[in-house]
Amino acid sequence: MSTPTPSGPLNLIHLLTKFSDHWSQRTIGTLNDYEIKLAKLLGEFVWHSHPDTDEMFLVLSGTLNIQLRDRNVMLNPGEVFVVPKGAEHCPKADKEVAVMLLEPKGVVNTGNSERGDLTIAPRAMDEV
Amino acid sequence: MSTPTPSGPLNLIHLLTKFSDHWSQRTIGTLNDYEIKLAKLLGEFVWHSHPDTDEMFLVLSGTLNIQLRDRNVMLNPGEVFVVPKGAEHCPKADKEVAVMLLEPKGVVNTGNSERGDLTIAPRAMDEV
Repeated sequence: MSTPTPSGPLNLIHLLTKFSDHWSQRTIGTLNDYEIKLAKLLGEFVWHSHPDTDEMFLVLSGTLNIQLRDRNVMLNPGEVFVVPKGAEHCPKADKEVAVMLLEPKGVVNTGNSERGDLTIAPRAMDEV
Repeated sequence: MSTPTPSGPLNLIHLLTKFSDHWSQRTIGTLNDYEIKLAKLLGEFVWHSHPDTDEMFLVLSGTLNIQLRDRNVMLNPGEVFVVPKGAEHCPKADKEVAVMLLEPKGVVNTGNSERGDLTIAPRAMDEV
């Protein structure tokens, strides 16, 4: 009964208004050792994989093309896709896409690819 | 490059049309050792806690009242709330609510409370 009070509801649409840059994840909460993150995507990312973990995408707005080596998975709002551990993938958004992401803390966004300008650690939201 | 192809997108609204019973979770996917589940809620559940894990709720339709011992958290569509490990809580839905849930595989839905009619293991969706 004395468990500390958790934070309040996370309104995803409201939180998306708090940032505008692309491919820069914002951590909005945690689920055990997983991070719940938001991101805005525009253009094509880099081909990469995460050798140790699956990665969950939930599209909130726009249409996301998750390119896999053998096909493309098109995700519209309200659709979830889990990129399996080790699967090479490259997200692509012809128009801006907003997503909620779930993966373990500490996952590098560019996975096993060479680190470059797109390698950005998740930031905390200024306000959650 | 030879990683097996994952399943396709999970359209949450479409999957919600596939079942109608309340408080009976449907597993629609996995994220490592976590289950991604859907559920429809109506009425009041039982007070319980999960001593070993957080539990993530994302409300898809309706308004969910997650009663905690010290306050209520009202969740509308597009809002996420993580009930912390060990926190006693009791979900309540005056009208039907649809949620997406994320928690580790094997979590008992009624947590530490006495098992009863509401204790139901997650089922697989017939069609995902």
